[in-house]
Amino acid sequence: MSNKDLNELRDQLDDINLQLLHLISNRAKVVQEIGKVKEKQGVNRYDPVRERKMLDLIESNNEGPLDVATVKHLFKEIFKAGLDLQEDDHKKALLV
Amino acid sequence: MSNKDLNELRDQLDDINLQLLHLISNRAKVVQEIGKVKEKQGVNRYDPVRERKMLDLIESNNEGPLDVATVKHLFKEIFKAGLDLQEDDHKKALLV
Repeated sequence: MSNKDLNELRDQLDDINLQLLHLISNRAKVVQEIGKVKEKQGVNRYDPVRERKMLDLIESNNEGPLDVATVKHLFKEIFKAGLDLQEDDHKKALLV
Repeated sequence: MSNKDLNELRDQLDDINLQLLHLISNRAKVVQEIGKVKEKQGVNRYDPVRERKMLDLIESNNEGPLDVATVKHLFKEIFKAGLDLQEDDHKKALLV
């Protein structure tokens, strides 16, 4: 392995990072849409049962190399970012 | 908007979650490869300059709806998961 290999691997990592950014952003947009639907229905934005189901699906599809605890931790952070965004949208809606 | 729309949006979210899991796992594999190269070269696994560059690239490509601070926080957690995995691999290598 040489520095050339290292640079190639780093290019791969940058590419994956941008794909992740794209997906995380798309996910946030879908979460915003869900927030709008729930707003109209007057139901709570945070749904622990639904979060449990999402985590179960993720856990059952995890093939590593990251362990389940790490993967769950990352997704909980991603879920939280989405919920915070819904909360911001809700506050803005109240101000309109 | 109806419950049907909500279910469709949730299906989209599950689909995106699995794509994210796939990418996060692939990213971890590339990080493991980088760890092996660095192990052979005897250089430090954690490289703050490289992390800074990755974050700069991510920041300059962020188009929302998540703000830059949130996106950076999520990626720092993803970076940490990769570094922890390299650390585990390093310990295992020492035990062989």
